[in-house]
Amino acid sequence: MEGDIALGLKYVGAGLATLGMIGAAIGVGNIFSSFLDAAMRNPSAAPQQTGNLFIGMALAEALGILSFLVAVLILFVV
Amino acid sequence: MEGDIALGLKYVGAGLATLGMIGAAIGVGNIFSSFLDAAMRNPSAAPQQTGNLFIGMALAEALGILSFLVAVLILFVV
Amino acid sequence: MEGDIALGLKYVGAGLATLGMIGAAIGVGNIFSSFLDAAMRNPSAAPQQTGNLFIGMALAEALGILSFLVAVLILFVV
Amino acid sequence: MEGDIALGLKYVGAGLATLGMIGAAIGVGNIFSSFLDAAMRNPSAAPQQTGNLFIGMALAEALGILSFLVAVLILFVV
Amino acid sequence: MEGDIALGLKYVGAGLATLGMIGAAIGVGNIFSSFLDAAMRNPSAAPQQTGNLFIGMALAEALGILSFLVAVLILFVV
Repeated sequence: MEGDIALGLKYVGAGLATLGMIGAAIGVGNIFSSFLDAAMRNPSAAPQQTGNLFIGMALAEALGILSFLVAVLILFVV
Repeated sequence: MEGDIALGLKYVGAGLATLGMIGAAIGVGNIFSSFLDAAMRNPSAAPQQTGNLFIGMALAEALGILSFLVAVLILFVV
Repeated sequence: MEGDIALGLKYVGAGLATLGMIGAAIGVGNIFSSFLDAAMRNPSAAPQQTGNLFIGMALAEALGILSFLVAVLILFVV
Repeated sequence: MEGDIALGLKYVGAGLATLGMIGAAIGVGNIFSSFLDAAMRNPSAAPQQTGNLFIGMALAEALGILSFLVAVLILFVV
Repeated sequence: MEGDIALGLKYVGAGLATLGMIGAAIGVGNIFSSFLDAAMRNPSAAPQQTGNLFIGMALAEALGILSFLVAVLILFVV
């Protein structure tokens, strides 16, 4: 058995880091899912809540981007 | 026992990276599921929400694409 | 087989640490999801609850940021 | 293969410890999610339940902070 | 490769022990979530159920504290 164990485990670490994106995508999905449901039940109230829709989406998406950042840091920086 | 341990762990890392797509598929599924449900309850309101449907889908899908990107980076770039 | 096992496991630890963000993103998603749903059912009551929306979001987001902090501590500090 | 295996596994342990935060963030999310939903259905009853909201949030958040504490103990104390 | 493998696996064990807190925090979250929801639907009945709220919370929280205790026992006692 030859090969660099640290290099190999770097790939495993980067792979594991993508798992943090599972939650972000579910979170973004739930936010848009509720918005679409509610916006068609009461279309006149939808425009007022578009701001909150995008704030919530950005906050959940940000956690997924941080996971991606950790994967990139593991692969290319450290 | 022979073989390159780093090469082997590269495959494991790429495999793990696909797990990040679990959430993206659930999220996109929830968004379309709610849209279809609501659009048939109130068909006249559906066209106004098509834009939000595609924005939400793109944001959840993007997190899955980032997981795929990490898998490809592990296999072919680093 | 050569390479530094401690260095390799550092990458795995940092990758694992991103998993703590799964819950934070789902939590933030649920909070905004309920807010949007309720705010369109009763738009006049929404402004009073915006403070609670952001307190809840900050508390859930903080747990995700702490996970990211642990990942960064593992990669760059210890 | 060289390197300190105990040091390497310390990183893995700290990474694993962040997984305890998954539940805390989902729990905090559910509590605020229900509060916002109910408070907009019956706005006059919301102020009486704000105390219970913060007690519940603190208890769920505390479990996440304990996980973070275990991660920090593993990294810096033992 | 040098280092004490038993010491290293002690860290991994303590990290794994925090996973027991995932369920406790989700459980506490669900209890408070249902209480708040119901208390605002029928505010006059809420004070009678506050005792049950805290008994349920204590029982779920206790399981999380026991997980934390196991993590601390692994790190500092055995």
